[in-house]
Amino acid sequence: MTIAQQQHLILSRHEVSYHDLTLFKQTDGSPIAFLGRGTAAIDMYRGNFDIKDNLQTKIPLTITDEQVAEDDITLTLGFDGRDYLSLNFTIDSHDRLQVTPTLLIDGWNRLWLRLTAQSDEKVYGAGEQLSYFNLRGHHFPLWSSEPGIGRNKHTLTTFQADQNHAGGDYYTTNYPEATFVSTQHYFCHVESYTYADFDFQNDDYHELQFWGVPTKLVFDQAPTYLELATKLTALMGRNANLPTWTDNGIILGLQGGTQRVNDLKNKLQAHDVQIAGLWCQDWEGIRMTSFGKRLFWDWRADERLYPHLTDQIQAWQQDGIQFLGYINPYIANDAESFQAAAAKGYFAQTQDGGVYLVDFGEFHCGVVDFTNPDAFEWFKGIIKHQLIDAGITGWMADFGEYLPTDVVLYDHSDPLMMHNKWPVLWAQCNYEAVQESGKADQLMYFMRAGAAGSQKYTPLLWAGDQSVNWSQDDGLISTVPAALSSGIIGNSLSHSDIGGYTSLYGNVRSKELFMRWAEMAAFTPIMRSHEGNRPDQNFQVYEDDEAIDHLAQYTKVFKRLTAYRRAVIAEAAHRGLPAQWPLFMHYEDDAHAYDVQDEFLFGSDLLVAPVSQPNQTSWSVYLPDDQWVHLWSGRPYTGGTHTVPAPLGEIPVFYRKDSAFADLFQQIGASK
Amino acid sequence: MTIAQQQHLILSRHEVSYHDLTLFKQTDGSPIAFLGRGTAAIDMYRGNFDIKDNLQTKIPLTITDEQVAEDDITLTLGFDGRDYLSLNFTIDSHDRLQVTPTLLIDGWNRLWLRLTAQSDEKVYGAGEQLSYFNLRGHHFPLWSSEPGIGRNKHTLTTFQADQNHAGGDYYTTNYPEATFVSTQHYFCHVESYTYADFDFQNDDYHELQFWGVPTKLVFDQAPTYLELATKLTALMGRNANLPTWTDNGIILGLQGGTQRVNDLKNKLQAHDVQIAGLWCQDWEGIRMTSFGKRLFWDWRADERLYPHLTDQIQAWQQDGIQFLGYINPYIANDAESFQAAAAKGYFAQTQDGGVYLVDFGEFHCGVVDFTNPDAFEWFKGIIKHQLIDAGITGWMADFGEYLPTDVVLYDHSDPLMMHNKWPVLWAQCNYEAVQESGKADQLMYFMRAGAAGSQKYTPLLWAGDQSVNWSQDDGLISTVPAALSSGIIGNSLSHSDIGGYTSLYGNVRSKELFMRWAEMAAFTPIMRSHEGNRPDQNFQVYEDDEAIDHLAQYTKVFKRLTAYRRAVIAEAAHRGLPAQWPLFMHYEDDAHAYDVQDEFLFGSDLLVAPVSQPNQTSWSVYLPDDQWVHLWSGRPYTGGTHTVPAPLGEIPVFYRKDSAFADLFQQIGASK
Repeated sequence: MTIAQQQHLILSRHEVSYHDLTLFKQTDGSPIAFLGRGTAAIDMYRGNFDIKDNLQTKIPLTITDEQVAEDDITLTLGFDGRDYLSLNFTIDSHDRLQVTPTLLIDGWNRLWLRLTAQSDEKVYGAGEQLSYFNLRGHHFPLWSSEPGIGRNKHTLTTFQADQNHAGGDYYTTNYPEATFVSTQHYFCHVESYTYADFDFQNDDYHELQFWGVPTKLVFDQAPTYLELATKLTALMGRNANLPTWTDNGIILGLQGGTQRVNDLKNKLQAHDVQIAGLWCQDWEGIRMTSFGKRLFWDWRADERLYPHLTDQIQAWQQDGIQFLGYINPYIANDAESFQAAAAKGYFAQTQDGGVYLVDFGEFHCGVVDFTNPDAFEWFKGIIKHQLIDAGITGWMADFGEYLPTDVVLYDHSDPLMMHNKWPVLWAQCNYEAVQESGKADQLMYFMRAGAAGSQKYTPLLWAGDQSVNWSQDDGLISTVPAALSSGIIGNSLSHSDIGGYTSLYGNVRSKELFMRWAEMAAFTPIMRSHEGNRPDQNFQVYEDDEAIDHLAQYTKVFKRLTAYRRAVIAEAAHRGLPAQWPLFMHYEDDAHAYDVQDEFLFGSDLLVAPVSQPNQTSWSVYLPDDQWVHLWSGRPYTGGTHTVPAPLGEIPVFYRKDSAFADLFQQIGASK
Repeated sequence: MTIAQQQHLILSRHEVSYHDLTLFKQTDGSPIAFLGRGTAAIDMYRGNFDIKDNLQTKIPLTITDEQVAEDDITLTLGFDGRDYLSLNFTIDSHDRLQVTPTLLIDGWNRLWLRLTAQSDEKVYGAGEQLSYFNLRGHHFPLWSSEPGIGRNKHTLTTFQADQNHAGGDYYTTNYPEATFVSTQHYFCHVESYTYADFDFQNDDYHELQFWGVPTKLVFDQAPTYLELATKLTALMGRNANLPTWTDNGIILGLQGGTQRVNDLKNKLQAHDVQIAGLWCQDWEGIRMTSFGKRLFWDWRADERLYPHLTDQIQAWQQDGIQFLGYINPYIANDAESFQAAAAKGYFAQTQDGGVYLVDFGEFHCGVVDFTNPDAFEWFKGIIKHQLIDAGITGWMADFGEYLPTDVVLYDHSDPLMMHNKWPVLWAQCNYEAVQESGKADQLMYFMRAGAAGSQKYTPLLWAGDQSVNWSQDDGLISTVPAALSSGIIGNSLSHSDIGGYTSLYGNVRSKELFMRWAEMAAFTPIMRSHEGNRPDQNFQVYEDDEAIDHLAQYTKVFKRLTAYRRAVIAEAAHRGLPAQWPLFMHYEDDAHAYDVQDEFLFGSDLLVAPVSQPNQTSWSVYLPDDQWVHLWSGRPYTGGTHTVPAPLGEIPVFYRKDSAFADLFQQIGASK
């Protein structure tokens, strides 16, 4: 057994340690790697996937050879007398550990790697995870998809949605990523976009499964989670950037054409609602389906609904209000631009060379093939010319998860390998459009789909489609683990649809849900409302004076928070910190903080505990050990679990007494 | 490549054929065997199991050597240069093919074998299967358990039951068996009781997975399914035997003590209901739980409910009515006999040497350890002395599926290997008690749990607990595939609880359900009613005069059918034919018949098409090509799909015009 004494990397008795952290350890009972051969069986139904593996072969590998040099270790692993895999460990110039697996024999398409774990260790990340923030004790298939409606096999909503393959599960997400952060103070980022499954169920190891062989795994360590966030974003990229107009108030999600939008804007303004923008996802027109109003996917202004839109946008801007639109990376096959684009080969194809049409529920679309450079440029051009040049200064860049696994792509990549990457190609298209427009400081876009690289290419996430209810896995409170998990892996800015989106299977948005959601949103990077998928059947703020007044109050709170929020965004931009921190990120010694996923810190100085059940006049809040001030009452609190008054209109929020912004907070609390 | 020209067994180009039937064929894309190593994770919750495999290793094996002798072929199989498994093929003295797998290297506990299949082939059996009769297109885990409540993940009942781990699925069954019959006119019986999974999803092969290495696989062929049934039962055993008193009418399931039972018996007799027996499952006393009335598991007559039971039984017998009881292979830990039995080591133990207590829902039981010869004799003695000697001439021998996988058994067998076998040890205990009593011709017992060997040790099955509803997977009609599948693998006699049993999750038995069920039961080997798990909340026949009269009619039909039914039972006893045949067993050339699982032939001459939905006055019936006579009307029908009148009271039944029993049928039809 070779012992290598290196500054950072040690191999001792089948154990690889990095900065005193044992990461790989072969024992009799537990190998560090397995290889396998399988055939994936993947069915897609409107962005929901049924995935099975036909596993033919799986072999456990044991170390047969060890080569050690300065900051460089290579393990050779074999099974029953033959060598199959080498693992190379090196330290790069940034002092990170790079682990590179190399097949020694071809034909293997499944790899399992086991990282050493401690029984009390917790892990976070793996993309945007809506059910569990601490991932330990569960396994997480990583495959970009619809997140599901209900997302919990024990709820009736999920059961009903599952009749249409749409229920989802605790792990389904628009944004899976093979990256996680451990309470052992390291992060692990795997360069791989294949289907994967991160299994954190075992006390002694984390088992990472890949349908393919990753390029490499990258590890880094830091004494604090704050520094770890900075290191992680140094690797993955940072793009936290919001134009200052977003500070002006709420982005109102409205539809129905200029006339209607104006009427509603005026009504809300009459109640002093602070409005930053009007977001009209139907700017390009609509179609009706059984799901509800669907947008017409051909990305140009609809002259009937929004006549002379560019002029109208200028008028709104003079009023201090921006206009936001919508786009996604598909084109409806009855859209005007479809035929020409198809003829130029801009869409992903079927085996027979025709356009692959994806069923989105009563209409079909071509998938813009981002592996085709011309298609990529063409679609970037659409964003630049049909959105940005038209005066649109923000948009929802929706979807990205629906790449079927049997398409034929321009560059002949395996769609199984491209599926999880697709969102980041889509993000990059938006990113370049913004960069090339020359107006980057005025523009913003937000995405739900993501992948490794979103940290760089997506300035703002939104938590996707929640059900318009109070459920843990798919309602209001699920937006918190969503923000915390995407944030801890480097996506600093996230927000959500105020009031949720999906009204199906008996779920209907209540006034109270909207109001509680708005209260929470004021303490996130962006306030934005959504009429939902069935506007006429769900509560809309503009229908109710009390709700409008409540919204006015909270948009003012949001506006007054600008200086603080800008500081938070700056930390995100420069240090890669998330805007919404898990409690433990600040209070590392607080054991309980590691289990909290229904509260967050907005920046370092505000603790937000959203009320996530109806009919509450008080709420139980956990405060880490510090000196806190209850925002609305000014009352002091110390650490511990407290029942605080929380009537509708008063979301439990606390600021740190010694915050540099204490005066600002005190004024905000007093003025509501 | 060796070519062996044998009379029966041929090896040619990696293909083993038996009587011109290719059974094993190695191709590039498809090996005939895989070995693996896994660790089972099995949780039991009241007889419902959650089973996962932690599969560490799986290797595909290819043929490395072939040895051929007279009627004897041995294939050696290996992976990557090493040999792991040999498969020996021989023809035995009965002209059966025996395939014996032998490990060449220790430490493998997973075996997959692939049998060659034809794309249009269908397969049946695999124990008692309640959802699918033709098994092709699905896979079937084989593990004895509660069958589930709902048994279909798309039904609300199942969803609700799953909140308590109790929903089950299409494959969950009290009686799994590694035996099936193919439309290629062969059967395959595997000598193995381990957890298995029979996967019939692939067009080109059947993949049989075992958690262990079976002793052997046995195949036989025959030109007709009737002859195949005879051959299969020649191998497995036959025990079709019902005392003649069962012909006297219905066995009434009643509870509540002698007084109540007598009152109800008298009431029904006043309406001329023909009664063969009184089945009082509470003869040993009851306890109340949230599930409903539960029986008190200490197998002796309860003096308060049934005082002087032996004398009372004699009185009933003089009236021509037998008394039936109930027993299962557990003892409640608050039962009188528990302590002494525990002290003698009669119960399965925990790792620490204490009695392993199984939770049955608000009470706990010891598991009688049948691997302990003294315990086996002791419990047999209970049946002989406390049931048979007491005058009981029939009983429900319930349960058998709940052997936990972490018990310690007297003979130190691995409970993982004993779990599926346990029902047949339980059956054998009953069987020997009956044989040793000297009164075998007067006695009968019926079981729901089963295993390979039930064919020999269990004279009569019942289809377990149905929900009191019309559902496909767990209601009235599920008793048909149950009878057909258990029948085709050699369990000739089956029946069901008239009206079903489980009233939970909103399911309540209706009068109509009871009546339709009784109509069906008259054309099965036994009519027996059950009050269900919640008698007070569910329809009982004795509450309603119309239902009583309807039952009287049908018990008379049953009684009048005696000569025919006896002939059917004789065929079962002598030729191993099931009493309830699938249509294709008689009509081999009828392609559609192979897909019918909601009709059956009772013997060769009666076709029964139960009405399995409420509110029907007519019913669609498929008749194979023959000359049929509608029983009630005397109208002639030929083959095809017909809509026939089927008002409540007239289950669609047809007899073959040229039946030797045509006159009897004609009289029965006319006299109702």
